[in-house]
Amino acid sequence: MSGSDALLELRDRLRRFAAERDWQQFHAPKNLAMALSVEAGELLEHFQWLSEDASRRLPAGDLAKVREELADVLLYLVRLADELGVDLAVAARDKIELNARKYPVDRARGTSRKSTDF
Amino acid sequence: MSGSDALLELRDRLRRFAAERDWQQFHAPKNLAMALSVEAGELLEHFQWLSEDASRRLPAGDLAKVREELADVLLYLVRLADELGVDLAVAARDKIELNARKYPVDRARGTSRKSTDF
Amino acid sequence: MSGSDALLELRDRLRRFAAERDWQQFHAPKNLAMALSVEAGELLEHFQWLSEDASRRLPAGDLAKVREELADVLLYLVRLADELGVDLAVAARDKIELNARKYPVDRARGTSRKSTDF
Amino acid sequence: MSGSDALLELRDRLRRFAAERDWQQFHAPKNLAMALSVEAGELLEHFQWLSEDASRRLPAGDLAKVREELADVLLYLVRLADELGVDLAVAARDKIELNARKYPVDRARGTSRKSTDF
Repeated sequence: MSGSDALLELRDRLRRFAAERDWQQFHAPKNLAMALSVEAGELLEHFQWLSEDASRRLPAGDLAKVREELADVLLYLVRLADELGVDLAVAARDKIELNARKYPVDRARGTSRKSTDF
Repeated sequence: MSGSDALLELRDRLRRFAAERDWQQFHAPKNLAMALSVEAGELLEHFQWLSEDASRRLPAGDLAKVREELADVLLYLVRLADELGVDLAVAARDKIELNARKYPVDRARGTSRKSTDF
Repeated sequence: MSGSDALLELRDRLRRFAAERDWQQFHAPKNLAMALSVEAGELLEHFQWLSEDASRRLPAGDLAKVREELADVLLYLVRLADELGVDLAVAARDKIELNARKYPVDRARGTSRKSTDF
Repeated sequence: MSGSDALLELRDRLRRFAAERDWQQFHAPKNLAMALSVEAGELLEHFQWLSEDASRRLPAGDLAKVREELADVLLYLVRLADELGVDLAVAARDKIELNARKYPVDRARGTSRKSTDF
């Protein structure tokens, strides 16, 4: 992964993948947002009956499946951002900076409350 | 973004962000998978009453909000993968290769059917 | 269905179903809310690549599967409400009355905008 | 609630609510399934950072909000089933009977495993 940018590479590979299969017709942002949500649900399924502790130490077989769901979420996220013309890496950096202002270290330490509830 | 790797940089920034706020205690994979799903739902909300066509040409104000939701999904995805010890970029590449075998160009062209329905 | 109340009957059957299997230990509201979200995602999957029109005329085989997902959502919803001590039917009626005030007929006619955007 | 059927009453009220506002045009099953998923995500949000124990004893203010989200899920579920011509109560009963066969008391007692993993 070193030396190149994984998100840009993924974007280009997925763009090509869709074009080769003539799938752009299905890739309206509305549909891609649905597919992303479906994959987030499949990811969630692995954790629904686990305690928080157990979720920190998944058996190898479960982790392999969860890893695949994580990948699915990323693939649809990258595809959706591309269709919308959004640079994911820049958007993520902007959001971290916004979060840093909303959740200053001294007020947010050790609490899971929303910033609006401070 | 060029020259460095956006996913690794995000992972490190988010790890630090959580540590500074003593938030690792909340970041059990179970909880992060929930947060990811919540953000996927917030993303979905922007598209629920739009036609597919309208979703391809969002007004600038809506796009700005959607961009923020995309970032939120990515932040939780990166945080969750980090807690699970998963390299997202490698997982995504492996999944694309698997998908390429499941959806060969000649059989998948122009159809949205699942590979199991071919 | 006539003559009795379907929601109350479901609540009682599901309560018994869980008790017989000693499943109350897993049925923390947190977990049931996750299970509900997972089922909502499985329901969504059936529609992700369909046009709105196509979603109005599902083939019989697809409809049978969707019907099962609708049931799954209802079962977890009823179970969750029961664990929280919420009377679903009364909550729903209260919400309809709230919505009627938020979306008066003359202002809401023919628009899908949120009431906060009127 | 006694003496009438809550689900049928809800179905009829929501059908009228949509008709009066000329909202049937937005209520393609695809869109309603999205709205249901969005509401399931809003419900989930209340639980994402809570322990399972804490989720069993919500403060009154949180419970009031959760109650409203439960209602929202039910409203979209009833509306969606109506658009698809599905009788929710019958579908739910059929599913409970199916689950009773998949999870016989003696094998399912005290385990959260899927029936396919028995």
